[in-house]
Amino acid sequence: MNSFLRGAQNVLKTMCFVNPVVSKPFLKKDTKAIGDVSGIIGLIGHQKGALVLTFSEKAILLIVSKMLYEEQTEINRDVKDAVGELTNMISGDSRKRLSALGMNFEAGLPTVITGRNHEIESGMSAGAQTISIPFVVGAGYRFSVEFNFE
Amino acid sequence: MNSFLRGAQNVLKTMCFVNPVVSKPFLKKDTKAIGDVSGIIGLIGHQKGALVLTFSEKAILLIVSKMLYEEQTEINRDVKDAVGELTNMISGDSRKRLSALGMNFEAGLPTVITGRNHEIESGMSAGAQTISIPFVVGAGYRFSVEFNFE
Repeated sequence: MNSFLRGAQNVLKTMCFVNPVVSKPFLKKDTKAIGDVSGIIGLIGHQKGALVLTFSEKAILLIVSKMLYEEQTEINRDVKDAVGELTNMISGDSRKRLSALGMNFEAGLPTVITGRNHEIESGMSAGAQTISIPFVVGAGYRFSVEFNFE
Repeated sequence: MNSFLRGAQNVLKTMCFVNPVVSKPFLKKDTKAIGDVSGIIGLIGHQKGALVLTFSEKAILLIVSKMLYEEQTEINRDVKDAVGELTNMISGDSRKRLSALGMNFEAGLPTVITGRNHEIESGMSAGAQTISIPFVVGAGYRFSVEFNFE
């Protein structure tokens, strides 16, 4: 869990120059995440799973504005590409941390979902569990990093 | 490509008793799929990728009604769970076909997205390609099976 938390913090700090406030990670009872834009990537190796980043529109516009040194006012092509890149980078940084703990994972290709208030449910398979790490950037703009494993 | 086409046809026929009409698969120029409910699963092995099923509401209600022997009138818990299962099963059937061709893949865990007219973009990474297979069930209800690889 710490590997994903530190992976997300490190990528956002070094690539986007933001220091999001992190809240206590929790084991999800219902598996729902609601957001306006999300990135998903499959993880396979030590276990099967998926990593899901879900952003509110305001959170991702703030993050990508800083990342690209240009103010973003809508979820356009640049913002979607940035979500794909962030998903890849946070997966890579986290997997490096997990590897140092003896847990090796490979990742698939990222998929980006847009649509106001879409719901994402992961880890629905029998025996799967989802951990959610809630973050806040700027004036209370929410996003979450979730991962699920069998 | 044929492995995914036949995998989808086989699972829908044997599990859901539907025989969808398939149109010619095509290489996507823009990577957008629009649907009301989607299932995504990461694939890793021979190449990195993802498999994405995207359904219109009418298509998935028809499919799950037949699968569960009970008429479904909204995208509820049962329908979402069925989309996760279908994603797993089509991934498994297709991977068995790919394996027979000497291409071995493992799959992550499925993620299910709901939200009217959400957009899914995959294969945005440099060098990645997306193949889309359009299907129609019932009275013209659309869904698609897409996969992307580096």
